[in-house]
Amino acid sequence: MSTISTNPPAGMRDFGPAELCARRHVENVIRDVFEAHGFVEIETPAVENLSTLLGKYGEEGDQLLFRLLHRRDKLSRALEGKPAEKDLAETGLRYDLTVPLARFIANNAATLPRFFKRYQIQPVWRADRPGKGRFREFCQCDVDITGTSSLLAEADICNAVAMTLSRLGLTNVAIHLNHRCLLRGLIAASGITAGHEESALVAVDKLDKINEDGVLKELDTRGITPESGRKLLEVLRRPDGLTEVAELDRLRTALASNEEAVKSIDELRQLLEVAADSMAGPLFKIDASLARGLGYYTGPIFEIRAADIKGSLGGGGRYDNLIGMFSNRSIPAVGFSIGFERLILVLEERKLMPPLMTGPEVLLCRFAEVPAAGILRIANLLRQAGLRIEVYPETPKIGKQLGYAESIHVKVAAMLGEDELKAGNITLKNLASGEQVTVTLGAAASMITGWLGKTPL
Amino acid sequence: MSTISTNPPAGMRDFGPAELCARRHVENVIRDVFEAHGFVEIETPAVENLSTLLGKYGEEGDQLLFRLLHRRDKLSRALEGKPAEKDLAETGLRYDLTVPLARFIANNAATLPRFFKRYQIQPVWRADRPGKGRFREFCQCDVDITGTSSLLAEADICNAVAMTLSRLGLTNVAIHLNHRCLLRGLIAASGITAGHEESALVAVDKLDKINEDGVLKELDTRGITPESGRKLLEVLRRPDGLTEVAELDRLRTALASNEEAVKSIDELRQLLEVAADSMAGPLFKIDASLARGLGYYTGPIFEIRAADIKGSLGGGGRYDNLIGMFSNRSIPAVGFSIGFERLILVLEERKLMPPLMTGPEVLLCRFAEVPAAGILRIANLLRQAGLRIEVYPETPKIGKQLGYAESIHVKVAAMLGEDELKAGNITLKNLASGEQVTVTLGAAASMITGWLGKTPL
Repeated sequence: MSTISTNPPAGMRDFGPAELCARRHVENVIRDVFEAHGFVEIETPAVENLSTLLGKYGEEGDQLLFRLLHRRDKLSRALEGKPAEKDLAETGLRYDLTVPLARFIANNAATLPRFFKRYQIQPVWRADRPGKGRFREFCQCDVDITGTSSLLAEADICNAVAMTLSRLGLTNVAIHLNHRCLLRGLIAASGITAGHEESALVAVDKLDKINEDGVLKELDTRGITPESGRKLLEVLRRPDGLTEVAELDRLRTALASNEEAVKSIDELRQLLEVAADSMAGPLFKIDASLARGLGYYTGPIFEIRAADIKGSLGGGGRYDNLIGMFSNRSIPAVGFSIGFERLILVLEERKLMPPLMTGPEVLLCRFAEVPAAGILRIANLLRQAGLRIEVYPETPKIGKQLGYAESIHVKVAAMLGEDELKAGNITLKNLASGEQVTVTLGAAASMITGWLGKTPL
Repeated sequence: MSTISTNPPAGMRDFGPAELCARRHVENVIRDVFEAHGFVEIETPAVENLSTLLGKYGEEGDQLLFRLLHRRDKLSRALEGKPAEKDLAETGLRYDLTVPLARFIANNAATLPRFFKRYQIQPVWRADRPGKGRFREFCQCDVDITGTSSLLAEADICNAVAMTLSRLGLTNVAIHLNHRCLLRGLIAASGITAGHEESALVAVDKLDKINEDGVLKELDTRGITPESGRKLLEVLRRPDGLTEVAELDRLRTALASNEEAVKSIDELRQLLEVAADSMAGPLFKIDASLARGLGYYTGPIFEIRAADIKGSLGGGGRYDNLIGMFSNRSIPAVGFSIGFERLILVLEERKLMPPLMTGPEVLLCRFAEVPAAGILRIANLLRQAGLRIEVYPETPKIGKQLGYAESIHVKVAAMLGEDELKAGNITLKNLASGEQVTVTLGAAASMITGWLGKTPL
């Protein structure tokens, strides 16, 4: 068995203790902030019926689904004929958290509150080509409010996102803000026909990555005249020094008579007002070129950008026609997906992860003549004081035990010999300073707590 | 799309907010206790290579693996011929957490500490026939110490498990204790040949479920003479009133000259001594009939049993030949798997789940003339005091908003009208008592905190 690889499969990852602590930290901040906003958490299974998943993510998405192979009789029967892919599986792995939310809402319609504010932090799986920062299993962190068309929902969610970023210590971030109807209006006003709208959206979506020249080229390839392309790029270009409201006014002029687009500008202006005193207010940045890939948005769209970082740290928007897909009802919704994996990377790059390890703080060592029962009793005594205690399981020379203590980076070693045991004492060594003292068992916890700089329980 | 089922696939579950709170509570207690014992957490991917998984769980286990169907070219190529199951997949879903641990250890050998104390709480997937309490996706919670043969490791793990049960409020529990070599010795001493040992183990494992008569019948079916069967059952029967040590002495007499089995009795006696002053000490119950299904145990084995509850709440033991399987090394190990799903059921049955909801505590309502921006500002003010605040997103009549507040079980409704807004006040309503007061914004948080019985931040 020695020849098989012990790496995880391509695009999948193991998380060791240090990485996992960092992930838990971010998770806990998100959890705290969203719960402070009245969101509740749900989980859905990793496996969904293909009838639930297929056709929801476009053709490309369908291709990236992991399907679970039929088993036993069902497989045998399928293999008797000349099977195609569809004959070999009827379930697959979750591809995102939005479709499961829609299914959950349809399945629990009778008991859910009218405004369902849910968050969900779970892995999703996509058979993408693995690459740097691109995984086949990755964590999504979604937060959605369903059941209201009020712009207060947009402001509420963006406030929660802004509070999360702030709690994580992430400064120099902006929430780019646009409206699907606004961008559509600008495309139409540039003389691009309705038939080319989708192509234009796809090209504009890449502005951040391939710049204006690249977008112009792509528009040209897609059959949009250079004149229209240049006109579109010009109106998308935001002049320096404009306030958000002034930028909206500029765009309104460019749109003139497009009623729907003007209405969308009014909505964005209202959203700016509603969120003005919230934590999202100062982060909002009107960005008429923001397209967001997914076609299902119907209103305001947002994206977190950080200075010096390509791409986004998450995004979302209003999507009023999706959540009802399994319910045969129209359910308005607004959501945000925090780019959990990107966020971790950025926090690490910017050295914003606090010291996090939850490993042991104290290693309990003993001389060979001390019975194991005695040391386990002392371990529990110290644990009652909130300390994280590892017990060295064997009794080699004390020097070896201390060497192990250093190798696992505990701050304190506690040593027990026969004399200490009889006297009810213990010897403590501060491994950072080298200080060593013998104290009574009753005094040990507070001594250690002091060395660690912890608040006593 | 209305005809497709919105239930999760067979054997899979959605967890709504209340269920998830209960699960998180248990998870957090486990986390706290194991970290207090110096364990660190890891996670491994849901998907493993089939080369890692196959052949580790017996033939039946292999049958229960979920395999991920090949995609695109690989699938097309496979379908050109006359494919078998093995040609259609090379990865599958995690079946347990032990094999991934072994792979993780082999893959990280250079950086892991000599004694690796890890815990892991993640779902696993098995294509079992779904039934009451039997799921195809369920949470496992494993804790293992690798790298030492010292019995202190057994005591350490059992102490942590005992502390977990105690923190969860679960009383009337026992940790049944046996040793693989002891049970083997008793089987041999009953005149059962080595060739029938495995059959005898399988039959004895069912003693809890099918009683002595059932086991006798099964032993007979498997070709073991009634005389041997009766002899075995007799020696397994523990007389009333014996202490644990006395029970070990009784078993020692029955074994007489079987050197290995006598050694195992000495080990159990030592373990009782080592754990005597720990939280596991009073819970240990020598049970020579404890077999534990899996054949890979090599030393002491344990199982949590609760009074009035059939089956176990988790179990484990020493398994010295498994963790090294991908490393070509022998790595001693002892582990415990807490029956997470059973535990949740039992805690709920015994009404031991504390009040847990993390949903909003306060609903902020407003009259139509109050701008949304004002209410969002107040929401953040109250959140700074550690309160969980939901804002009603629309402005129907206040009565309707209050009705919603009651429907989502918040304890307090806060109402803002134009007068309050101007005066810097807010009206608070205690929905339990009906009490209603108008206070300054600065006084609102402490008033609410008092009503909720929370400690101020």
